[in-house]
Amino acid sequence: MGRTSDARERILTAATDLFSLRSYGSIGVAEICAQAGVPKGSFYHFFESKQALALEIIDLQWGSQRGRWQRVLDGDGSLVGRLKELFAFTVEVQNLSLSEAGVVCGCIFGNLNLELSAGDDPMRERLRAIFDEQVHMIRRSIEAAQALGDVPAIDARGAAKSIVAQIEGTVMFAKLFNDPGQLDELWANSLRLLMVSEAQEV
Amino acid sequence: MGRTSDARERILTAATDLFSLRSYGSIGVAEICAQAGVPKGSFYHFFESKQALALEIIDLQWGSQRGRWQRVLDGDGSLVGRLKELFAFTVEVQNLSLSEAGVVCGCIFGNLNLELSAGDDPMRERLRAIFDEQVHMIRRSIEAAQALGDVPAIDARGAAKSIVAQIEGTVMFAKLFNDPGQLDELWANSLRLLMVSEAQEV
Repeated sequence: MGRTSDARERILTAATDLFSLRSYGSIGVAEICAQAGVPKGSFYHFFESKQALALEIIDLQWGSQRGRWQRVLDGDGSLVGRLKELFAFTVEVQNLSLSEAGVVCGCIFGNLNLELSAGDDPMRERLRAIFDEQVHMIRRSIEAAQALGDVPAIDARGAAKSIVAQIEGTVMFAKLFNDPGQLDELWANSLRLLMVSEAQEV
Repeated sequence: MGRTSDARERILTAATDLFSLRSYGSIGVAEICAQAGVPKGSFYHFFESKQALALEIIDLQWGSQRGRWQRVLDGDGSLVGRLKELFAFTVEVQNLSLSEAGVVCGCIFGNLNLELSAGDDPMRERLRAIFDEQVHMIRRSIEAAQALGDVPAIDARGAAKSIVAQIEGTVMFAKLFNDPGQLDELWANSLRLLMVSEAQEV
């Protein structure tokens, strides 16, 4: 049994690990508490419900991922090059999951989304906001690249959405085949969605 | 309580409906039997486990979807036109789900995949085989279109994979936003992945 003072933190860590590896629906509060080494009674001292805990984990994960995305998209080099770096980050996350946990965990937002039921409205709203924000961030980069003539005058929002969908679908393949190599062609495919030829890539 | 003779059928129907609407992990044998109007004891007369039932449902669903895909891909008109029809079918399935069940259910294979845990090996194998077969079917169509000069000489297998990933990612958006309209741009995006201009579409 750990110190009470870090019990909340340990519940968050244990649940993040469990939600990355198994389905949300299959994991109960008892299992989270057992893995965290925290008595079940104290769970409800910190979190109203498993859903409240999941919402906090979603916010923490997206907060961290958004920060990384922002740094990459605001970085040096051509905008197309920055998008390429964003995808390298996606591959890195899945490689890390494979080497640390032995499995490609996929995208926690995509995993949770596909498990959603009609009753999961707060979680659905949060996930919608995250995907909207991802599309918005990539859209802004595409528009900036269009202003420089690096990307043709296609619908930037539609292209950004298609790129996020391509990431999610390809990460799903990486999870299914437990192979981050499935992501190898993500970059070339995204260039096609942007109608940028690979030779043109700067 | 229905007749014993159709109990197996009713379990399959009830479970298919439940798995389309909620996560696999959140649905137990008791709920499936209650919805089917079948005593829980008789479940194990027909199925060894919930997983065995799920595998049979996966096979039935893919058997039906594959037949439809095959008819569309072997149909008349240009190969690009047939692919377009394939996507129209995807949109139709999600529209039907929305009008009949009130929710966009997404892709049952994608939903189950993102719920998979390390212990779900038989299901993982089945889903891998299905996605491999989907890629193979689209690849064959692309190669035939390339032979006619309708699609440029890109890597057909890679392009087919990117299209299946695009379908899965976009269907995930449709599920998240409960809006089949999310699929509106799927066709234009797939043409880009094939490097076929919309003007060129025949």
